[in-house]
Amino acid sequence: MVDSTHTHSPAVTAGGRTARVAETIRGRIGARGLAPGERLPSIRRLAGQMGVSPSTVVEAYDRLAAEGLIRARPGSGFYVCGPAAPLTLADATPRRDRAIDPLWLSRQALDAEPGVPMPGCGWLPAAWMPQGAIRRAMRGLARAEDGLLTDYGSTRGALDLRRLLERQFAGEGLAVPADQILLTASDTNAVDLIGRFLLRPGDTVLVDDPCYFNFQALLAVHGVRLLGVPYTPTGPDLARFEAVLAEHRPRLYLTNSALQNPTGASLSPQTAHLVLTLAAAHDLTIVEDDIFADLEPEPSPRLAALDGLARVIRIGSFSKTLSAAIRCGYIAARPDWLEALADLQVATSFGGPSPISVELVTGTLRDGSYRRHLDALHRRLSKARRETAARLEPLGIVPWLMPRGGFQLWCALPHGLDAADVARAALDEGLVLAPGNVFSLSGSASGFMRFNVAQMGDARIFDGLARAMKAAQRRAPASAEIDLPPSVL
Amino acid sequence: MVDSTHTHSPAVTAGGRTARVAETIRGRIGARGLAPGERLPSIRRLAGQMGVSPSTVVEAYDRLAAEGLIRARPGSGFYVCGPAAPLTLADATPRRDRAIDPLWLSRQALDAEPGVPMPGCGWLPAAWMPQGAIRRAMRGLARAEDGLLTDYGSTRGALDLRRLLERQFAGEGLAVPADQILLTASDTNAVDLIGRFLLRPGDTVLVDDPCYFNFQALLAVHGVRLLGVPYTPTGPDLARFEAVLAEHRPRLYLTNSALQNPTGASLSPQTAHLVLTLAAAHDLTIVEDDIFADLEPEPSPRLAALDGLARVIRIGSFSKTLSAAIRCGYIAARPDWLEALADLQVATSFGGPSPISVELVTGTLRDGSYRRHLDALHRRLSKARRETAARLEPLGIVPWLMPRGGFQLWCALPHGLDAADVARAALDEGLVLAPGNVFSLSGSASGFMRFNVAQMGDARIFDGLARAMKAAQRRAPASAEIDLPPSVL
Repeated sequence: MVDSTHTHSPAVTAGGRTARVAETIRGRIGARGLAPGERLPSIRRLAGQMGVSPSTVVEAYDRLAAEGLIRARPGSGFYVCGPAAPLTLADATPRRDRAIDPLWLSRQALDAEPGVPMPGCGWLPAAWMPQGAIRRAMRGLARAEDGLLTDYGSTRGALDLRRLLERQFAGEGLAVPADQILLTASDTNAVDLIGRFLLRPGDTVLVDDPCYFNFQALLAVHGVRLLGVPYTPTGPDLARFEAVLAEHRPRLYLTNSALQNPTGASLSPQTAHLVLTLAAAHDLTIVEDDIFADLEPEPSPRLAALDGLARVIRIGSFSKTLSAAIRCGYIAARPDWLEALADLQVATSFGGPSPISVELVTGTLRDGSYRRHLDALHRRLSKARRETAARLEPLGIVPWLMPRGGFQLWCALPHGLDAADVARAALDEGLVLAPGNVFSLSGSASGFMRFNVAQMGDARIFDGLARAMKAAQRRAPASAEIDLPPSVL
Repeated sequence: MVDSTHTHSPAVTAGGRTARVAETIRGRIGARGLAPGERLPSIRRLAGQMGVSPSTVVEAYDRLAAEGLIRARPGSGFYVCGPAAPLTLADATPRRDRAIDPLWLSRQALDAEPGVPMPGCGWLPAAWMPQGAIRRAMRGLARAEDGLLTDYGSTRGALDLRRLLERQFAGEGLAVPADQILLTASDTNAVDLIGRFLLRPGDTVLVDDPCYFNFQALLAVHGVRLLGVPYTPTGPDLARFEAVLAEHRPRLYLTNSALQNPTGASLSPQTAHLVLTLAAAHDLTIVEDDIFADLEPEPSPRLAALDGLARVIRIGSFSKTLSAAIRCGYIAARPDWLEALADLQVATSFGGPSPISVELVTGTLRDGSYRRHLDALHRRLSKARRETAARLEPLGIVPWLMPRGGFQLWCALPHGLDAADVARAALDEGLVLAPGNVFSLSGSASGFMRFNVAQMGDARIFDGLARAMKAAQRRAPASAEIDLPPSVL
C-alpha cells in the first residue's frame, strides 16, 4: 500500500492526507482522548501539528461530520458528537458573581416561603391585586359552556381579549387590528417566541444597562451576543446607542419604554423619536416590552405608537396589575411576522395561553371595578414610593430618580458598599434583595439596589437591611472605604 | 500594487488572496448581489471560481464573519448577515404536500368554527370531559386565598399536584420523588424544553413512522435531523431500530409507549425490554410521551418504569382526559436534568403552567368523580371504536389494528386512494380529516387516515367522507387504479 504522505501525485496526496487526518481524529475519539462534547483542535492548529494544509483538515472534518462523529457549531469550531453533558443554563449565563446571578434572583423570589419579606421581587403583593374582580370572573367561568372549559384554544387566542387590546391600543394612537395580536403564555414567552423567530445564534442583541435581569438568562438560551447601552432618565444614551448600532449592527433592541425595569425611568418624546430614527438608519428591529403599561398614571411615549409596528414589536402581559398566576401575555406585530409567530407557538406549545386564563383576564378587564382598581393602585403606589424613599434615606440609600409610576425604586447605596455583598448578608436576615449587578450587563451597577415599594410594609425589612449593610461593611476590605450613615451604625 | 495572484512569495500570496476573496464577497454584499440571509457559495465552489485554495476561502470567510458581515450555520455553510427575512416555520418544516402538512392540520383543527365535525382531530368532544368536576374545582378556587389567584407559581409547580403524580407513578412501579417532577405549560412544551436542553442543531432524533404530526413541526424548530422507524403493532420495528442506532447514533428517541399516536398500538413487554437494551448499548436518551395514559383501561408496559428514569424522560399532560383548556403538563427526569430544565423554564417562561391551571387539575383529580369519569370514558370509547369500525367498513376503510383503548383509529383506505386527496375534497364537505402522510416522515402512509372515534357521532361525517372519496377518485389519474366499494359509488 502506498504511504500517501510520501507520494507526490497531487490527487493521491490530498485524498490520502485527508484520510490520515480523519483516521487520527477517529482514533482519538475512539480512545476517548477526545471526549463527547469536547472541542476539536482548530483547523489551523491541527494543520500545523500534522503538517498538512488547512483545506485538508477542512475536508477531514467535513468527512467526520458526514459520518456523524463530529459536528460544527457556528463561530465556535467542531465538537465531538455523542451523549455529551447537555447544556446547562448556568454555563450559558454570564456569571459575574458566583452566587448572585439572574437565575439566582428568579429562584429566590419564585420559591420563597409564604410570608418571607421580598423587597427585591418584581410584583405586587396579592392584597394589592383585583381579587374581587378575579373571583367574579372565575365564578362566571364556572358556569361557562362546556367547550370553553375543556377545548384547546384557537391559534391566536380568543378574539374577545384581542378586541379589548385592539381598543386599548387605538386609545394610545396605535391602530392594530385584532388579527395582528397573538396571545401568549406570558410576556417572557413572547420575548422567547420572537427570539426564536428573529434571532440566530451569534446574532447581536441590544439591551439597556441596567435591564430586567431575566432578559439576560433568556437571551443566553438563544446563544446571542448581548450588548448593553447605558440607560438615562429619559431612555437609552443616544450617543452610545448610535455608536453601538454603527459598530455592531445588532439584530434586535429589547427594551421597556415606560417605567423601565429596574430604573423606573420612561422614554422622553425626543429620545423615542431619535431611537426610531436611528433604528431606521441601521435597520434595527425593536421589541418594546410594555409590561408596566397599566402602572402609569399618565401614558408616556411608546415606540410602537410612533412607529406603527413597522419595525417595532409590542409585547406585554397582565401579570403586574391583574394577576401573575393567570399567565397571559400578547404580541402585536407586522401581519407576516405575526402569522409566523402563531405557527411557531403551535409547533412549540400547541397553542398559546390557557383559554381559561384568557377568559379570566377578559372577565376581570371587563369588570367595572378594574379601572377603579388601577386608579387606587396608582395613588397607593405614589404614597408607597414617597414613604419608601423617606425610610431609605436614613440608611444613606438614595433613589436614582423618582419614577412617574409603578413599584420600582432604583437606589444608590452608600459609597463603597457592594450590593451583592448586602444581598448575601440579607439572606441571613430572611430578606431577598435585588442587587444592581444582576441587572447590569457591564457589571457597573454594584452600587445600586432595586426596591419594590409595594413590598416594604414589613418593619423587619429596614432593620434587616441596616444589619445586612453593616455585615457587608465588616466583610469588605478596608480599601472599599465604605461610608455608612450614623443611623446605620 | 502587487497583483497577489501572480506573486510567488507564499506569505504575500496567501494574505493577498484572502484579502481579494474577502473584498469580492464584500462587494457583492454591498451591491446586494448577495442579499441578507442568502447563502454564500460553498468553500469549494468559490475556491474553484476564483482560482484559489479552499483554505484561502476559509480564511476570507472567517475574516468576514469576524467583521459581522456573514455567519456560519452548522452543517449548512455561510450566510449573509443583516435583517434577512426571518425564519418561517413553513420553510423549516418538510413539505411533502403543498397544502396538507402538520401545521395545516393543527391550524384547521384549532381554528375550526364551533359545530364543524372534526373526525380528524386529536381530542375528545367537550361533552365527554369531566365538566362537573372541573366546575366544582373552579368554584372552590374562586374562594381560595389571595396569593393563589395572583402570585407567580414556584419554579417546579405546586407540590400538591407533583405529589399526586408521585403516587400515580408509584402505582405503576416507577418511584419518582415529587422533587424530580417539573410541571410544564403543556405536553408539547415539555418536549420543547427537553429539546432545548438536550439537542443541538444538526443532532439526529428518532421518531416513529407514523408519529404525532406536531413532533415533526416542533423538532423542525430545533433544526435537528429526523429519522423514522416503522411502527409495528407491538412497538418500533426492532431490526430497523437497531440498524438506525448503529448507523446514525441518534441523540434522542421520542415516542408514545401506550396508545401510540396515530396507530393506537401499545408497546409489548418484549419490545419495551429490547428497546431499552438497544438504547443502553448505543447510549440513546428516550422521551416517553405518556399523554394517553389515562385512556388505557389496563396499563401496558412503560419504558420509564422499566428504566427507572436512567435514560428515559417521562412526560405527559391532562389534555386528553381532563381538559385541554387548562394547559398543564409535566416532566419526570433525572435530578440533574430536572434542575436544568426548571432553570430553562424560568428563563424562557418565568415559570411553568398557570398556578390556577395547576390548582384546577389538582381539584379535578381529587374530585371523587374523576375515577368514575375514566371508567365511563373507557366503556364509551370501546363502544365508539366498534361502531366507527362498523360504519367505516362499507366505505372500504379498515382499521390497521383495534386499539386497547383511546379514541384513535388508524385505518387503511381502499386501494389506490390518496388520503391527502380525500382530505382536500373533504374540506368542501366541511370536514377536517387527518390524512396519513401528515404523520409519516417517510411519506409512506398515503393510504391511511386517522379517525377519532369520539368525534364520529355526526351522521354527516360518513356521507361527506363517501362523497370526498368519490371526488378524490374522479380527480386521480386513471393509473391510480382506485378500488372503491359499491356502497360508496
